[in-house]
Amino acid sequence: MNRRQFLATTAAAPLLAEARHPGIFKFTLGTPEQITPVSTRRYAPVSTDSLPGISTAPVTPKGRISKRGYLVTLPLAPNELVYGLGLQLQSFIQRGLKKKLRVNADPKVDSGDSHAPVPFYVTTRGYGVLIDTARYATFYCGNKKRKGIPDEAGSRTGDGFVSPVGLPAAYNRYNFNQPSEVLIEIPEAQGVDVYIFAGPSLREAVQRYNLFSGSGPIPPRWGLGMWYRASQDFTQDEVLKLSAEFRQRRIPCDVIGLEPKWQTHAYSCSYVWSDRFPDPAAMVENLAADHYRLNLWEHAFTHPSSPIYKDLLAHSGDYEVWGGVVPDFLQPEAREIFADFHEKTHVALGVSGYKLDECDNSDFTGNWSFPEFSAFPSGADGEQMHSLFGLRYQDTIQSIFEKRKQPTYGLVRSSGALAAPYPYVLYSDLYDHAEFIKGIAKSGFSGILWTPELRDAKNEEDLIRRLQSVALSPMALINGWYIRNPPWKQIERAANNKDQIDPYWEQLESRCREVMNLRMRLVPYIHSAFIRYHRDGLPPFRALVMDYPQDPQTWTIDDQYMMGDNIIVAPVVAGQHERSVYLPEGDWHDYWTGYRHSGRIQVRAPLERIPIFVRGGTILPLADITLHTDDPASWNLTAMIYSDGAATGTLYEEDGTEVRYTWDGGNFRGAGKRYVITDRKLMRG
Amino acid sequence: MNRRQFLATTAAAPLLAEARHPGIFKFTLGTPEQITPVSTRRYAPVSTDSLPGISTAPVTPKGRISKRGYLVTLPLAPNELVYGLGLQLQSFIQRGLKKKLRVNADPKVDSGDSHAPVPFYVTTRGYGVLIDTARYATFYCGNKKRKGIPDEAGSRTGDGFVSPVGLPAAYNRYNFNQPSEVLIEIPEAQGVDVYIFAGPSLREAVQRYNLFSGSGPIPPRWGLGMWYRASQDFTQDEVLKLSAEFRQRRIPCDVIGLEPKWQTHAYSCSYVWSDRFPDPAAMVENLAADHYRLNLWEHAFTHPSSPIYKDLLAHSGDYEVWGGVVPDFLQPEAREIFADFHEKTHVALGVSGYKLDECDNSDFTGNWSFPEFSAFPSGADGEQMHSLFGLRYQDTIQSIFEKRKQPTYGLVRSSGALAAPYPYVLYSDLYDHAEFIKGIAKSGFSGILWTPELRDAKNEEDLIRRLQSVALSPMALINGWYIRNPPWKQIERAANNKDQIDPYWEQLESRCREVMNLRMRLVPYIHSAFIRYHRDGLPPFRALVMDYPQDPQTWTIDDQYMMGDNIIVAPVVAGQHERSVYLPEGDWHDYWTGYRHSGRIQVRAPLERIPIFVRGGTILPLADITLHTDDPASWNLTAMIYSDGAATGTLYEEDGTEVRYTWDGGNFRGAGKRYVITDRKLMRG
Repeated sequence: MNRRQFLATTAAAPLLAEARHPGIFKFTLGTPEQITPVSTRRYAPVSTDSLPGISTAPVTPKGRISKRGYLVTLPLAPNELVYGLGLQLQSFIQRGLKKKLRVNADPKVDSGDSHAPVPFYVTTRGYGVLIDTARYATFYCGNKKRKGIPDEAGSRTGDGFVSPVGLPAAYNRYNFNQPSEVLIEIPEAQGVDVYIFAGPSLREAVQRYNLFSGSGPIPPRWGLGMWYRASQDFTQDEVLKLSAEFRQRRIPCDVIGLEPKWQTHAYSCSYVWSDRFPDPAAMVENLAADHYRLNLWEHAFTHPSSPIYKDLLAHSGDYEVWGGVVPDFLQPEAREIFADFHEKTHVALGVSGYKLDECDNSDFTGNWSFPEFSAFPSGADGEQMHSLFGLRYQDTIQSIFEKRKQPTYGLVRSSGALAAPYPYVLYSDLYDHAEFIKGIAKSGFSGILWTPELRDAKNEEDLIRRLQSVALSPMALINGWYIRNPPWKQIERAANNKDQIDPYWEQLESRCREVMNLRMRLVPYIHSAFIRYHRDGLPPFRALVMDYPQDPQTWTIDDQYMMGDNIIVAPVVAGQHERSVYLPEGDWHDYWTGYRHSGRIQVRAPLERIPIFVRGGTILPLADITLHTDDPASWNLTAMIYSDGAATGTLYEEDGTEVRYTWDGGNFRGAGKRYVITDRKLMRG
Repeated sequence: MNRRQFLATTAAAPLLAEARHPGIFKFTLGTPEQITPVSTRRYAPVSTDSLPGISTAPVTPKGRISKRGYLVTLPLAPNELVYGLGLQLQSFIQRGLKKKLRVNADPKVDSGDSHAPVPFYVTTRGYGVLIDTARYATFYCGNKKRKGIPDEAGSRTGDGFVSPVGLPAAYNRYNFNQPSEVLIEIPEAQGVDVYIFAGPSLREAVQRYNLFSGSGPIPPRWGLGMWYRASQDFTQDEVLKLSAEFRQRRIPCDVIGLEPKWQTHAYSCSYVWSDRFPDPAAMVENLAADHYRLNLWEHAFTHPSSPIYKDLLAHSGDYEVWGGVVPDFLQPEAREIFADFHEKTHVALGVSGYKLDECDNSDFTGNWSFPEFSAFPSGADGEQMHSLFGLRYQDTIQSIFEKRKQPTYGLVRSSGALAAPYPYVLYSDLYDHAEFIKGIAKSGFSGILWTPELRDAKNEEDLIRRLQSVALSPMALINGWYIRNPPWKQIERAANNKDQIDPYWEQLESRCREVMNLRMRLVPYIHSAFIRYHRDGLPPFRALVMDYPQDPQTWTIDDQYMMGDNIIVAPVVAGQHERSVYLPEGDWHDYWTGYRHSGRIQVRAPLERIPIFVRGGTILPLADITLHTDDPASWNLTAMIYSDGAATGTLYEEDGTEVRYTWDGGNFRGAGKRYVITDRKLMRG
C-alpha cells in the first residue's frame, strides 16, 4: 500500500445529472443571469447517495421582479435559526440580521462584507438554501415585517421585543418566536436559480450542499503539518538558513512560504523570480532534500514586466490595478496563459502551491482592486467578477496541479459559493483572536476553510494561545512575513527585525514546540476528518449546532468547535485562565487528563493546555512526533482510549482505506492508556 | 432695535430661476430619475450675487448608461485634491479613495457609509460638483486607471507609487501627480443632473453650493448656549430638580433635552407624554421661567398606539420598523399629519425643538430600519427614501416652526444633499474623540453641522478635553442620557447611576464650568459666524484648506479648524500634553496669552486650555459670562484686541445689523487689553 499515492480530489468524480440528486431541488425564478457560481463552476456535483433520499422540498422560494432587481422570499418558522452566508466574522446566528454579501477585505462591521461571502444558508429546521448569484445580494434574515400583519397573540412585550426559546437575553430584540421570512434582494437580476438542500437535519443539508459543490478536498498530509512563512526580505540563502535552523532546533515544519519580494515586481505581480533568488530550482531542491515544500505568495494583477502581460491584455478587464491587468479568469484563454506560465516557472521547479492574495476587493482602503463597473471580455462586470474572482483564480491554479496529478494545499484571500472542493484556506488581516477562533466554527456552514494564522503577539501568553488555536485549525500557519526571526525568539516586532533576540527565547521556543508537536500528533486524525469531508461532505471543522441542532444549548456556541467527529476544541485567548465549555449529549473526556465530563462545565486552562475534549468511547489515533510528515515515523500511531468501557475508532487513510478499530476494554477510567497501532490493527502496547 | 426679533431662516428667500445663478452650471445627462435631492427640496436657492460671476463651467461631466445604472466621469488634474462627500469620519482628502455613499449609522470603516453621505465634492482647483441622486452612488475619486493608458513620463517609481507634491509620505501610494478622473456609478439610474459650482477657489465653490442649497441657518442665540440631555429615566420632577441644580451650581445651560422614555412608547414612537411627565405644560412653563428651552428626542417610526398611526397608514412605506409605520415624508399628507400632531402636543406647549434619531438606517445592527426594497406611496423605494429620509424628516419638523415664525435648533442623526439651511446638528454613537474633532473640520465641505457630543469619559482629563471641543463646536452638547448625575459628579457610569458621587466632584465641576463659561463668552462670535453662513454661505466651522487652498500645508489638516473668520481651534485629546499647530499666512495670537505666532509651531496644552489662535489684527467681542442667553448681561461685550497695531472687528447680529469696529491702536503686544463695547461702539474700558 503506497500511502503517498495521490487521491484525485474531485476530478474523478462523475458528473451527475441533477435528477440523480435526491434531496436537492432547483427552482428557476424569473430569468436568471448567465454568469453565476453554478454556471461558471469547475467541479461537478458528486453523488449524495450516502444521505437519505428526500423527495419533497422542505421549503419553497418565491420571487418577483422589481425595478431594482429581483426579490426572493423564503419562509421562516418561529424560532427557526439561520446560519451561514460565508465567513461572517462578526456574527454567528444570522436570523435577525441584514447582510449585504459584498466581497471586501476589511469586514470590520457586521454588514455582510466578507472575504468569502457565500449566498448559502442553513437553518435549524434542517435545510439549506443556495441563491445562485454573483451579485452583491442583500439577505434580510427574518427581520422585516410588512405593514399591518398582526403578531401572533401575546408575542410582544414592552418595547416590542420577546424572549426567544432557549437563547440568552441578548437575542430578545429579534422576535425569533414569530413566523417570518428571509428576503433576498439581488441587484439588477431579472431572476435567479434557487437550490434547496434537504436535511433531514442541518448537518445533512450542509453535507448535501458540499457534495453538490463537488465535495471536500483532501489536503496532502504535508499540508496538515506546520507552515511557516518567512520574512519577505529574505534572500534564498536566508530562507535556507531558516529552514536548516528549524531542523536543528527541532521545530516541526512541512511548508515554507515566500512573501511578495520573491518576485521582481509584486504590486502588480511579475511572477518572475527576483535576484534575491538567483537559483530557485536549487533552492527548491535543497528544501525538498530537507523535506520542505515551498509555497509562493502572489496575487492575480499582472504587471507589464511580466512575460504573460501581453498575452493577457486581450483577456483582461478594462481597468488596471497597480498598473497591472486583471485577468478574466472566466475565460479559458486567461486561465491557460496564467496557469502555463506558473507551471513552467514555479511548479515544474517543485513549488508545492500558492497563497493567492488580494483577490478580495480591498478597494475601500486605497486602490486595491478593480471597479464594480469594470467590463470583462467574458461579459462579466466588476461586481460579478469580484464575487467569482477568488473561485476562478483557484480554478486557474488548480488546473496546474490537477493536470500534473499532484496534490496541493494553499491559501486564498477570497472565496464564495460552491467552494468545498478547493484545497485552499482563507485568512484575514483582521487580527482579533476571539474572532479568529469563531471563524473556525463558522466556516463549516459554508464549504470554506479558515486559518486563524499567527502573525505577531502582544506577549508570550498571546503567542501561545494563538499558536494553540492555529494548531487545531485547517492550516497550522505561522506567518512571519514581517519579522526576520521566529516570533518566539523575539515577540516585539522592531526588536525582532533588529535581530535583538530575547535572552530567554529558548524557554518560549520550547513551549511553542510543545504546541506544534500537538499538531503533529493530530495529523492522522485531522487528515482522516478531511477524507470524511471528501467522502461525505461533512466539514472537518464545524460548529456544535451542526452535530446537535436539536440541542438549543448549542445554538449560540461559536467559541468552541468540532474537529472531526470525536473532538471538541474550546480555545482560550490571552487573559483568560478558565472558561465555560458546553459538552453536548453524553460523556466527553478531557484530552489531557482523561477525566470524564458532561454538560456545561467550567474548566481551568493553564497556559500549556488548550481545552480539548474527546467523545467518550473513542479510540484516538495519535502519530509519533516528527519534524515533518515525510518522516516514516509520522505513520506510527498510538491509540489513546477515551472510554470507561468499549471504544471504537475509525481512521480514513489517503488511499481510500477505511480502517476501523474496536476495543472491548473493561471498566477503566482516564487517559494515559496507550496502545501501539501496528499494521493498522490495535494492539496492547 | 429688538435683538430677539426672529429672522426667518430661509423661508423669505426668493426663488431664483437657475439663470439667475452665475457660476452654477447644470448638466442633464441621460434621463434623470424623478426623485432626487433637488426635485424634493424644501428650500429654494438664494442669490449668489455676492460672489464673482463666472460664465464658463470649470469642468464638464460626461455620462453613459450601462446595464448597471449610470456612470458619470469628471476629470482630475495632477495634484488636484478632492474633499467632501459628507460626514466621512474616517478620511479627509477623498482623492485616491472609493466611497459608496450609503446611509448607515455605524460608519466604522472608510467605505463611504455615513450618517450624512452627501454626493457633493470640492477640489483644490476651485469648483464643486453635486450629483443629484438619491441612490447609493459609488465615487471613485481619481483612483482608477483604464487599461493601457501610459503614465506621464517618469511618474512612477518602485512599486508604482509616487510622492505627490507637498503631502506626507503616507499619500505616496495614490499617484496624485497623474491626471485622473472621478468616476461616479449610480445604481439603477438612466441619467442624472450634475451641478457644477464655480469658485474661483474651493471656498467660493462651497459658498455657492450652500447658497444654492438655500444658505445657512441662523440658530437662535439660545441654541448656541450649553445643552444638557437628561437621563432617560428621569421623571418630570427629576428634570426640574436637575435644572434648578444647574442654576444653583452656576452651570451654564440654555437647553434641556429629554431622551426616549418621555413617551408612552419609544421603539416605535407614540409621541405621547408618558406618565413620567404628568403635566408637561407646567414643566415647560417652569423651565421657561428659569430660561430653559426643552428639546425632545424622537424618531419617525410611528407606533400603533400613537394617535397619528391610523392617519399615517395610507401614507407610509410597506414595511414596518419596530412594529411602527414609516411615514412617507415625500408626501405632503404624511408631513402634515406628523407636523400637526407635534405642534399641538409639544410645540404649542413650548417645546423648542427635537432630536431626530434613528433616521440613519442603522439596519445592519439588528432591525433598526426599513429595507432598501421598500415601496412608498410617493413612488420612492427604500434606497431613495434612506438617502432623503433625514432631510425630509427635518422638513416636516421645520414646517411647524416656520409656520409659527419661531426659531428652533436641534439634532438630527442623518442628513444629505442641500442640507445647509437646516438648523440641525449631526451626532454619532461612534465615540473616538480624535475622530469627533475631525468631524468639525470635515462637515464644513458639505453644508452640514456636527457636534462632538460629550457622553462619558475615561477619566477627568478625557472629560475636560471632550468638553473643550464640544464648547468650540456648532452645538455645545452634554448628552447625559444614560447617567443620573452630570458626569463631573461621577465619571464612572455604574457608580454615577447609583448616585455614588465623587468626594472631590466640586473641583471637577469647577473645571468644567470654566470650559462652559468659555462657550458662553463666545456665543456672540459664533452667532455672528452663523449669520455670515446665512448671508454668504460660508460655513461657521470649516477646514483650513477652505480658506487657504493655495497653501499645501493646509491640505491635510483635519485636526484643526476655522471657527468663524478669525479663530483657529486646535483641540487636544486625553493623553496629549502638547501638539503641533499650523498657522497659515500672517500672524496669529494665542487666545490665552496674546503671544504672536506664525507658521508651524509646537504648543503646550495645559489641561485647562484648549489651543485657540486669533488672527492678528482682530477685535474679538466676548460676552459677559452668564448662565443662559436670556440674561441681558449676555449682550454685554468686551473687546479683546489681538494686534500689534490697527485692528478691526465685524459682528453680525440677529436682526441683520452688521456692526464694524475699528481700532487704530499703537504698538502694543499681547492680550489682556479689554475694552467694553457699549451700544455697539468700541470704547476704551
